[in-house]
Amino acid sequence: MGFIYLTNIQLDKAREEYLKALIARGMQSQEEVIPVTDASNRITSKAIYARICAPHYNACAMDGIALDAKITFGASETTPVTLRPEQYKYVDTGDPLPEGCDAVVMIEDVIDSTNELPHHPKPRNRGSRTFRNDGGIETTQENGVKLYEAVAPWQHIRQIGEDICAGEMILPSYSNINPAALGAMIASGVTEVSVIKRPTVGFIPTGDEIVPPTSEPGEGEILEFNSVIYTAMLNEMGAMMKTYPIVKDNAKQICAATRTALSECDIVLIGAGSSAGREDHTASVIAEIGKIVYHGIAIKPGKPAILGHCGVKPLMGLPGYPVSGIIVIEQLLRPIIECLTHTTKQPDKLVEATLSKSVVSTLKYHEFVRVKMGYVNDELIVSPLGRGSGIVTSFMRADGILEVPQGVEGYESGTRVNVRLLKNEEELRQSLVIIGSHDPLIDELSDLMRIKYGDISISSSHVGSMGGLLAIKKGEAHIAGTHLLDEKTGEYNTSFIRKLIPDKKVKLIECVKRKQGLILAKENPKKITCAADLTQEGVRFVNRQKGSGTRILMDYLCRKDALDTSKIYGYDREEFTHTSVAALIAANSADAGLGVYSAAKMYGLDFVHICDEQFDLLVSDDAWALPMVQKLIEVLKSDEFRKRLEILGGYILDKPGVVRKGN
Amino acid sequence: MGFIYLTNIQLDKAREEYLKALIARGMQSQEEVIPVTDASNRITSKAIYARICAPHYNACAMDGIALDAKITFGASETTPVTLRPEQYKYVDTGDPLPEGCDAVVMIEDVIDSTNELPHHPKPRNRGSRTFRNDGGIETTQENGVKLYEAVAPWQHIRQIGEDICAGEMILPSYSNINPAALGAMIASGVTEVSVIKRPTVGFIPTGDEIVPPTSEPGEGEILEFNSVIYTAMLNEMGAMMKTYPIVKDNAKQICAATRTALSECDIVLIGAGSSAGREDHTASVIAEIGKIVYHGIAIKPGKPAILGHCGVKPLMGLPGYPVSGIIVIEQLLRPIIECLTHTTKQPDKLVEATLSKSVVSTLKYHEFVRVKMGYVNDELIVSPLGRGSGIVTSFMRADGILEVPQGVEGYESGTRVNVRLLKNEEELRQSLVIIGSHDPLIDELSDLMRIKYGDISISSSHVGSMGGLLAIKKGEAHIAGTHLLDEKTGEYNTSFIRKLIPDKKVKLIECVKRKQGLILAKENPKKITCAADLTQEGVRFVNRQKGSGTRILMDYLCRKDALDTSKIYGYDREEFTHTSVAALIAANSADAGLGVYSAAKMYGLDFVHICDEQFDLLVSDDAWALPMVQKLIEVLKSDEFRKRLEILGGYILDKPGVVRKGN
Repeated sequence: MGFIYLTNIQLDKAREEYLKALIARGMQSQEEVIPVTDASNRITSKAIYARICAPHYNACAMDGIALDAKITFGASETTPVTLRPEQYKYVDTGDPLPEGCDAVVMIEDVIDSTNELPHHPKPRNRGSRTFRNDGGIETTQENGVKLYEAVAPWQHIRQIGEDICAGEMILPSYSNINPAALGAMIASGVTEVSVIKRPTVGFIPTGDEIVPPTSEPGEGEILEFNSVIYTAMLNEMGAMMKTYPIVKDNAKQICAATRTALSECDIVLIGAGSSAGREDHTASVIAEIGKIVYHGIAIKPGKPAILGHCGVKPLMGLPGYPVSGIIVIEQLLRPIIECLTHTTKQPDKLVEATLSKSVVSTLKYHEFVRVKMGYVNDELIVSPLGRGSGIVTSFMRADGILEVPQGVEGYESGTRVNVRLLKNEEELRQSLVIIGSHDPLIDELSDLMRIKYGDISISSSHVGSMGGLLAIKKGEAHIAGTHLLDEKTGEYNTSFIRKLIPDKKVKLIECVKRKQGLILAKENPKKITCAADLTQEGVRFVNRQKGSGTRILMDYLCRKDALDTSKIYGYDREEFTHTSVAALIAANSADAGLGVYSAAKMYGLDFVHICDEQFDLLVSDDAWALPMVQKLIEVLKSDEFRKRLEILGGYILDKPGVVRKGN
Repeated sequence: MGFIYLTNIQLDKAREEYLKALIARGMQSQEEVIPVTDASNRITSKAIYARICAPHYNACAMDGIALDAKITFGASETTPVTLRPEQYKYVDTGDPLPEGCDAVVMIEDVIDSTNELPHHPKPRNRGSRTFRNDGGIETTQENGVKLYEAVAPWQHIRQIGEDICAGEMILPSYSNINPAALGAMIASGVTEVSVIKRPTVGFIPTGDEIVPPTSEPGEGEILEFNSVIYTAMLNEMGAMMKTYPIVKDNAKQICAATRTALSECDIVLIGAGSSAGREDHTASVIAEIGKIVYHGIAIKPGKPAILGHCGVKPLMGLPGYPVSGIIVIEQLLRPIIECLTHTTKQPDKLVEATLSKSVVSTLKYHEFVRVKMGYVNDELIVSPLGRGSGIVTSFMRADGILEVPQGVEGYESGTRVNVRLLKNEEELRQSLVIIGSHDPLIDELSDLMRIKYGDISISSSHVGSMGGLLAIKKGEAHIAGTHLLDEKTGEYNTSFIRKLIPDKKVKLIECVKRKQGLILAKENPKKITCAADLTQEGVRFVNRQKGSGTRILMDYLCRKDALDTSKIYGYDREEFTHTSVAALIAANSADAGLGVYSAAKMYGLDFVHICDEQFDLLVSDDAWALPMVQKLIEVLKSDEFRKRLEILGGYILDKPGVVRKGN
């Protein structure tokens, strides 16, 4: 099979037409009868009627005496009524109203006719209690009681049907069964309830390279984790998922697996192979077994989705990349689940916020950009997360989704955009935005903050020291990590702050000194000892992105030793974190890079120490007073933080948390 | 045990002090290690770090050819570069980057060097596929390819750690594990995760009168349904509940059951017996086994709650009435669960709304009033629901909670109040408010609306015809059911509308004619044939509330026959619906009442037909244009509605849904 061209159907049209096609073919919700005790949060498939009244008998609502109200008429402070023992019966809350009685008097209002004291009946003789309205009292020993107030008929009685009357409708069709509804049903004698069946979604992962989860996958083996993500998503939507064994890139085998799934499930999803590559069989399989409605939707990620059906059953092809699959399920499968469960998702909240970085999109697709968000000076700031469809962490970290409609080229940095919130605003207000230089210690800080102050979370992005200073200048971050060396003075950060953000009040907080140096393959096979060695033939270097403090240091080292950087292979291969530099070296995709000792240690790599540099936290004065910032300072000063850094290694803590300089 | 007096601790204080006491005794969250695949929506108990990189090898991100970028430098439209077969390797998405290559070219950009056509590699020989980068192609048959563009190093390659680097923190402590996080963990080689253990809550129902759910309880038997409500609530809070068998009102037995529960659960709740009645043992049991912190909280419902502990374990006494129990769990147990699970509930939304009925509260308690809500003319209207602590339906129907703080006497009708929403505003906007006369047909309407128009729900309150007209006048309802007879003209509704709401534009919609008459015990043992018979000795009548059309009819019947209503026993015993009147007669709590035939039929009771009356729906003109109102009119005209009423019985449908009269 060569390269067939996919269609590019507009999202709303695809969604609408697909659902229409399915309903036209007879797709509809199923029902099942289950015990009320299992019905929490289920949806009724028909109206539920009470079988008995609740209460189902006239019940005493107080501990006291039951009597016929008439006999108390006329009673008052001055003309009390004295009752003979046979004129009343002792009752407890919940007892049936005794024959011939139509009211209950609270025991507190009953006065002993002999001693004029509040009446204390003798404790009923335990165990022997029945409902014959003897109240368990040997009335023979009674001398009668006095009442100083007339009693209204039906007072302190829970009358039959006070809550629910037999025959009344408790819940109409298609209603969610909340906890109280469970109680109401049981109270009215309903023990079984007919509810909407949860649709079963079958998922078939495919691909020669796909293997089940393990900690030691071989090269070229891709771990199958989409099923776990999709299962969690579908459960939240009220569906159940059944994951089938992984199938190789083989049309026959995929066909067989699909037929099995179709025989066992209400909806079937085939994972991966939905595109038009040499090895993509999903489309042909769906075409063979059923019918394709659309192949190729104008969304990004998610374009190669296939919307088909077999009889009344939806049969979809999901792109292999997790992020694409998530979008397709969210945008195109959810409406089907909602139709089959008679539910509608509460729409995500849209908020207006300011974009911290430009987002370039293509006119061809409706794009879903995962974003982080945070309140800085009461301004909601949006930062796009990694957009690759393989970046599953982008969904894990997302606070919201920025949708760029088809036909829109994107948005400039600083634009006000509407973002669909995935978290509630309270959480966002509790999130401390740290943008700037990367260091593993920031993750440790964020963990310590969670442990000490549960509700605060740190939202950090690694854009390098320069980017951090800029973010502070533009009011897009509370704090920036920075380690910018001034070649002339040998001083860190201060001169850059003066230069870049002269007219903004900030505080520079001391954090740590950290060992910077060359991260090298284990046992340093290429015998690299200094920057100069990087120019050697066969040495593969990996660099940091421009604007990062480490890149500035690297450039400085080369200038200092008058090295021709064009002679350094991979000088333009840029990574954004110390860990990713170390990771590439550990995987033998590179031989050397500049980075902090802790990253080298993390991967058990060799390290040539070059300098100890000052890593500071820059805090804008507007943020300084925020409780969460002050709490961060506390954590910086804590022993726990010191201990964590000792474990990471390569840090010198002098006076973390003290203000080095304000301006 | 006599009547000990309960304390009346202010809610916030009780909540705070109780939690403090528990933490002081060492109450804290537990952790457990579970497979990632089971970890959806769980909370991490410690930071989670990646074990491997994701991707864990440099993976080709496209189908195409892999090569060393250097050899393409200089290629352009005018000076293409021709590559010999040994200079490139065919790769598919996901394949490892072949040795010596640092870039991938999309197959679409590869031109066959012989025929100048887009290059179509022969399908690889299925099955034999390995990861030895031979791309499965017999390269011998290749003649090489041409490139018209230079290739940038690392293009179309997912580099090691692009998503996650080994050693990086995936999630900090106390984070919710969302679907994408599950994927991220598996992708980075994490197969097990340590999470916060869900606390187990033990619940012990007590009471001599309590029996397990059944459809045929005996007199004096109260069905145990609190456990089902509480289980659902606690599951939503992230706890697990274990319900123990029902225990009699016997201190020894309750003690034993409690000790067992304490040995098996993290928290124990004793149901009922928490008050100070003769049969209330919960307090003494808790005092014996552990320690009571507070007994008696200044809340309504829920006052008799007992807050205690045994060692580090919370040990609480819940009031027996479901509504009280729900409030105590919501207000006093939830904070403990949140502390043990490191979660915080998203706060309910507070909205300002107008009170349709006065709420009188006592200064002594902080009261929680369940309310129904609806938008009428864009005004959010609040109507209090039944306030008895036995009325579990009040929670089932509640759209929100109106809190009346301690020290506040309540609120006048018409006051703007803050209500805690239990539903989202969208749902409320889709709710059609029908206030007025009761008839079982309204429930059928509401079911038909759900079936036909899923998202619309009917919120109905029964306040009688007069109350309905008033609600329309005050703009508190979209529609009112009414059947008011003008004695002089014999006409229904019109004259009352003219009189009561002269200056409001309304439409009177014909609904049904219905049979009104005397509802009598089966086989009419008291031989009642007309209103006059109700004055007979020994006849127990049950009446409808003043202002209801049926009461007005009843008063009229008495005047017409010159009956002395004081001679009618129970004339002042008022019920709010036809069904409750019938229910009381069916249960032999009364002998006769005035009501519609359908109610009599529902209970298989005798019926003496008195008149056919016009039951109309009054719609305010502001509401008339609303889609949901028009949809209701459609339903009125539908055959389904006609069929439903035939089953109910006693209705004559002439032209339901037509406008009888506007003004």
